[in-house]
Amino acid sequence: MSDSAAAIKTISFPDQDLLEAVRPLPDGLRGTVWDFRGDPADVDVADIDAVVLPYLNAQDILDVLSRATNLKLVQAQTTGVDGVAEAVGSDVAIASAAGVHAASTAELAVGLALASLRGIDAAARDQRDARWRHERRLSLADRKVLLVGVGGIGAEISKRLLPFEVELTRVGSKAREDEHGHVHGSDELVELAREAEVLIVITPLTDATRGLIDADVLAALPDGALVVNVARGAVVDSDALTREVVSGRISCAIDVFDPEPIPEEHPLWQAENALITPHVGGDTSAFQPRIVRLLKRQLAALGSGAEPENLVQRGGAWS
Amino acid sequence: MSDSAAAIKTISFPDQDLLEAVRPLPDGLRGTVWDFRGDPADVDVADIDAVVLPYLNAQDILDVLSRATNLKLVQAQTTGVDGVAEAVGSDVAIASAAGVHAASTAELAVGLALASLRGIDAAARDQRDARWRHERRLSLADRKVLLVGVGGIGAEISKRLLPFEVELTRVGSKAREDEHGHVHGSDELVELAREAEVLIVITPLTDATRGLIDADVLAALPDGALVVNVARGAVVDSDALTREVVSGRISCAIDVFDPEPIPEEHPLWQAENALITPHVGGDTSAFQPRIVRLLKRQLAALGSGAEPENLVQRGGAWS
Repeated sequence: MSDSAAAIKTISFPDQDLLEAVRPLPDGLRGTVWDFRGDPADVDVADIDAVVLPYLNAQDILDVLSRATNLKLVQAQTTGVDGVAEAVGSDVAIASAAGVHAASTAELAVGLALASLRGIDAAARDQRDARWRHERRLSLADRKVLLVGVGGIGAEISKRLLPFEVELTRVGSKAREDEHGHVHGSDELVELAREAEVLIVITPLTDATRGLIDADVLAALPDGALVVNVARGAVVDSDALTREVVSGRISCAIDVFDPEPIPEEHPLWQAENALITPHVGGDTSAFQPRIVRLLKRQLAALGSGAEPENLVQRGGAWS
Repeated sequence: MSDSAAAIKTISFPDQDLLEAVRPLPDGLRGTVWDFRGDPADVDVADIDAVVLPYLNAQDILDVLSRATNLKLVQAQTTGVDGVAEAVGSDVAIASAAGVHAASTAELAVGLALASLRGIDAAARDQRDARWRHERRLSLADRKVLLVGVGGIGAEISKRLLPFEVELTRVGSKAREDEHGHVHGSDELVELAREAEVLIVITPLTDATRGLIDADVLAALPDGALVVNVARGAVVDSDALTREVVSGRISCAIDVFDPEPIPEEHPLWQAENALITPHVGGDTSAFQPRIVRLLKRQLAALGSGAEPENLVQRGGAWS
């Protein structure tokens, strides 16, 4: 047990329901509610050692975190924590909710690919006109799928895709071998894109991945290819994607975009070959039981002075 | 080699393209084109020993088959051959296209379940209004799935579903064990439906399965359950399904219905909790290479006097 880790005594939750769901807290740990608008419920903001961020729109409250002058740990409810380190500095530890959203986000990626390829989206739109429009479509079976991202969610997408008789190629930051075979490096993306019929993006948003799927990668995709993005909008060049999709050369099925929400007048909304879901990758019934299980494990770790899971920045406490 | 099998010398194809795709035919077999509207291209209709049915709307031409007075074998391009035996009698052999559509139909079943549960259909409809509507949805993960049908396509659905963290229960005609565990009998359907959050139907249409998913089974489903049908419309009681869905108690995601196409004024078209695809389970890019491979194997069998695959009725030739 390190002194700094043991120093976490007060942890805030963004709403009362979440605090109740994780009770009882381990001895020595105090829970409070801080919604980042007013003051914490029953403690001084300077007493807060650790905060649990809200699940939705956490970006909007990051600048308020500077009020917690003794903050040591930020626990996100999302897998991606883009913007948090910039807001709190390098001395504060940051834990993601990696694992919590994997099943939910991975199944959405497969669902988006199937819906777009098989014309489920077009059929849903046709229903309003009572239109029974039979067309031969591409199956997911036999498709060459390029999966960009081999982290936790990438692994879950991969596992779900394999029984669909696809030819799967995986891309990570650097070329390497793992237990499932070869992982290509992101420097090979343009070359690999030439053969990709379905490109699935599931990387974290970092300086290295911002704009990773750029105009060159998109231009290298064959005509009729499908881009699925369940990562973060800014991993893909929004303007280049919009041009390629609105021209009809390729299709997209995206849960994320830059910016979000997509502005009303944006041309992507009306493209028949675009399928847009409103960033719901992790927002399902799978979320609540999994976030509660993670938070209970984290509280148990903090209560016993152990290191929490999912640290993406170690800060001063676990450096 | 039996005399009766060797007697097949002339086989008709519904279009020239398909005949060309399976060439060269084995020695001793002659191919012709018969579209069931006029006469065969270059033979007398009485010379035809075997016909390949059209893939789409084969039901519409079944009464024309009586013109082929020496018919010994009907090869369907579909998995289901409902109506064929009634049209040709018991002396003619019937071969299905089992296997050809399995990958394509199985992936549609999973795609329909994901699209409905995750609101991909609602999002596709929202696009026309540029509406970004974030709602928490049910994930496929953690769902109790009742799969009715354990034939070739059922097995492919099962294989694809398992990595999605579902709790899968399978139902066949009779209770038994197979290599994947226990199969429940269809006499347990009402009881099993009480716990089913997603009911997937993939049985052939036979006298035993017509109306199998009846008003009692549907009524037993819990509120909010989802019915996915990729089998044949008549396996489900259309009126009972429509009532339960239009009332909002349950949802459906169906590729088939009785009747097809669904009439324009049918209330299911406008139900927000109904997702309807126009019987496209097998009609994908996966079809052409797989049907050509099957037909080549069948021709090789006929050419060598061996028994063809997929006989669902043995007729006089292979009795």
